Amino acid sequence: MSHAAMLVIGAGDATGGAIAKRFAREGYRVCVTRRTEEAVSPLVESIQQDGGWARGFGCDARDEEAMTALFDTIEQDVGPLEVVVFNIGANVMFPIRETTTRVYRKVWEMAAFAGFLAGREAARVMVPRQKGTIIFTGATASLRGSSGFSAFASAKFALRALAQSMARELGPQGIHVAHPIIDGAIDTAFIRDNFPAMYAKKAQDGILNPEHIADSYWMLHQQPRDAWTHELDLRPWMETF
Amino acid sequence: MSHAAMLVIGAGDATGGAIAKRFAREGYRVCVTRRTEEAVSPLVESIQQDGGWARGFGCDARDEEAMTALFDTIEQDVGPLEVVVFNIGANVMFPIRETTTRVYRKVWEMAAFAGFLAGREAARVMVPRQKGTIIFTGATASLRGSSGFSAFASAKFALRALAQSMARELGPQGIHVAHPIIDGAIDTAFIRDNFPAMYAKKAQDGILNPEHIADSYWMLHQQPRDAWTHELDLRPWMETF
Amino acid sequence: MSHAAMLVIGAGDATGGAIAKRFAREGYRVCVTRRTEEAVSPLVESIQQDGGWARGFGCDARDEEAMTALFDTIEQDVGPLEVVVFNIGANVMFPIRETTTRVYRKVWEMAAFAGFLAGREAARVMVPRQKGTIIFTGATASLRGSSGFSAFASAKFALRALAQSMARELGPQGIHVAHPIIDGAIDTAFIRDNFPAMYAKKAQDGILNPEHIADSYWMLHQQPRDAWTHELDLRPWMETF
Amino acid sequence: MSHAAMLVIGAGDATGGAIAKRFAREGYRVCVTRRTEEAVSPLVESIQQDGGWARGFGCDARDEEAMTALFDTIEQDVGPLEVVVFNIGANVMFPIRETTTRVYRKVWEMAAFAGFLAGREAARVMVPRQKGTIIFTGATASLRGSSGFSAFASAKFALRALAQSMARELGPQGIHVAHPIIDGAIDTAFIRDNFPAMYAKKAQDGILNPEHIADSYWMLHQQPRDAWTHELDLRPWMETF
Repeated sequence: MSHAAMLVIGAGDATGGAIAKRFAREGYRVCVTRRTEEAVSPLVESIQQDGGWARGFGCDARDEEAMTALFDTIEQDVGPLEVVVFNIGANVMFPIRETTTRVYRKVWEMAAFAGFLAGREAARVMVPRQKGTIIFTGATASLRGSSGFSAFASAKFALRALAQSMARELGPQGIHVAHPIIDGAIDTAFIRDNFPAMYAKKAQDGILNPEHIADSYWMLHQQPRDAWTHELDLRPWMETF
Repeated sequence: MSHAAMLVIGAGDATGGAIAKRFAREGYRVCVTRRTEEAVSPLVESIQQDGGWARGFGCDARDEEAMTALFDTIEQDVGPLEVVVFNIGANVMFPIRETTTRVYRKVWEMAAFAGFLAGREAARVMVPRQKGTIIFTGATASLRGSSGFSAFASAKFALRALAQSMARELGPQGIHVAHPIIDGAIDTAFIRDNFPAMYAKKAQDGILNPEHIADSYWMLHQQPRDAWTHELDLRPWMETF
Repeated sequence: MSHAAMLVIGAGDATGGAIAKRFAREGYRVCVTRRTEEAVSPLVESIQQDGGWARGFGCDARDEEAMTALFDTIEQDVGPLEVVVFNIGANVMFPIRETTTRVYRKVWEMAAFAGFLAGREAARVMVPRQKGTIIFTGATASLRGSSGFSAFASAKFALRALAQSMARELGPQGIHVAHPIIDGAIDTAFIRDNFPAMYAKKAQDGILNPEHIADSYWMLHQQPRDAWTHELDLRPWMETF
Repeated sequence: MSHAAMLVIGAGDATGGAIAKRFAREGYRVCVTRRTEEAVSPLVESIQQDGGWARGFGCDARDEEAMTALFDTIEQDVGPLEVVVFNIGANVMFPIRETTTRVYRKVWEMAAFAGFLAGREAARVMVPRQKGTIIFTGATASLRGSSGFSAFASAKFALRALAQSMARELGPQGIHVAHPIIDGAIDTAFIRDNFPAMYAKKAQDGILNPEHIADSYWMLHQQPRDAWTHELDLRPWMETF
């Protein structure tokens, strides 16, 4: 295969979609996953209509066999993976006493364990080539535990530890591991429908445009290896921090 | 019950044992757990021989029902829990590509998920009384991911996120949540047998004495509520950091 | 001289005074400084009336010659310095555009440069003995820059850098360097007179009692060298953080 | 004046020069300073020969009057300042006991106080326009004090505190304040002549190319205001961290 491939695991939200579109515009064969292939097909069609190459996969990112198969299929049928983006979030808020075992475990499975599978499988295919970029999407809760966020912060801290550990291990093997931290609301249907006051800031650029997040992911991938960034924050100008 | 109880979850190593002994000397009814009751009985006997009150429990700290039952039993049969120490570690080191799903999950279950169960159950019994101390044992890997520590750092970061989130949520409800960070080798049989060069530093106080760690835990519990510590590091004088 | 000495630089506030009293009660010959000797004499008398040993010094802590002379005098006339506490703050709040050169420089001179002189002079007398404790008082602004705190945070960050650098350099030489972080209002006349709403929290232990801060400084000094703390936070239970 | 201006304070090293050239290529009127105008004239000529607009200024960045005059002159004669880069370093290494007052103060004056003057003057001209980018160059020592770096880390921590405080104050006023952290050796004559073993890594991209640092500064300035980065690290792939 001569065509370079990239993969967005968790392309269900606006951010994952914008990242996929950005890399497609740059000529990558873009693979995108959600739980079901149907769910991701509108994104695939949109990329294709814009002249890009895209393929959707239904994949439970918490399932080791499914993930291994996903990476194998892409490497065989699509091309060598140069970029893997892990973009699954699981933002929930519960007081500690109301955090069920099911919630605590599921948030970790989605936001941390699936990230581990993605990172390990990416390392498996990239390290022999000594080339590749692995990006894990971070959030405010990656840096700071807060009241009501015992489950979510636990998972995001874990993902950051994975990104740091992998960066220190794989950097000297030629793999660029990065952990951008999105610190603010993103322009998504979820924010529009559930947090209208927050969404109203859009008129003043007070929430993040997914395309601008995607620009940073592309920039990270483009960095020459003498000047790699492991961590950067992204935040609207009016956001308090 | 008029007697105050304290609980060390994970009293299998020297640190957990020293903490239990310290609180027993201060008059607490000390409950200690390991996977099996037999495993913890030498510690219980040792405390009792020193005139302290102790009771051992076999408990898989990753098992929600077992943990809920443990807290209920202590509250009913022993006394109101004033102090809960979560002290289970799971230090393993593997390159990312050799980290199996089983290892990544098990390390998290032991060092993070069990910590969540312990913290939540402690909150359940303490919050109505607006009183209590919950201490989670941290490590170097709680602050920093390193090559080979993807699994362990992920779990320890998660536990720190839990401690921070609980401290911010429960502090204003009167519960002191602390996260001491042990940064260095501890004087244990494990270090003695596996890292003799490290253990040789003992002659110069170059490894941590579990009793001194226990002193810090007692100090944390004794702090008046106007001057609580959430995080502190403990490190031998000659340790690089 | 056979009597151990300790020194509090900046004993003008309630915290410095409480620390001095605490070490005096433990048997130390306590030396305390403020800008003028008169200013510190009430504290000296109070310690003496309680049966302690105390001596006041007027000393501009930003003046190298004065500081060198201070340390020399104590070493010769009082006893070998075992503990040095640097406790000068300079909390000011100005928007960046209204921060004069004079303010920016003075805050640094008081909170950072004087700390450097104190730390260096302490190292000078302690390192040959391979024994001693040096404590720098930190604040919320030591960890985080905030709007309006360009000058103060700059100085407190600098002091923290000094404490970290000295700890890493001098720890292996037997000197314990610590940096407690006071995160909250302290029970002082200043808070009482200027922030009455904040002071009203005193009834619920919502502001820090200087004696409890002093307990932590004593605890830090007492730590055996196999289990030293470099940094810990101190915060009222109801303080948000 | 209709032409946008940018200013690099401390354009004496390869990094400052590369940043100036990059912004000149993008069409900015580039102003560059060193202690003397002569020292900066080769850079100015180089930019002009490449078809760019450049003007050199001799300016002691620690001198308030000189700095105020510099900003006034640029605003009047060159154009409205859209970008100000503070790039003065002062990397020195001394054990704490050998750190003279002169060194401690001078390092702070160069790396922190001058940064304050630059930042405040930039805020003075930018805030009324609610537009502009201010970038402070950080280093490894901005995040971590180390043995031998009491003076340098103090100054770099202070500069980071300034950058954080200004970002939090001025972000909501439309000013983008960023603090990139250069973590590794840069391809400079200084490294080539003094650290040949380090310089030898250049063949493998093991030291930072100043042009790639400049790319990141340009990227920071280009970020739309809904997705600003305050802090990012830049590090060669083989650098341990």
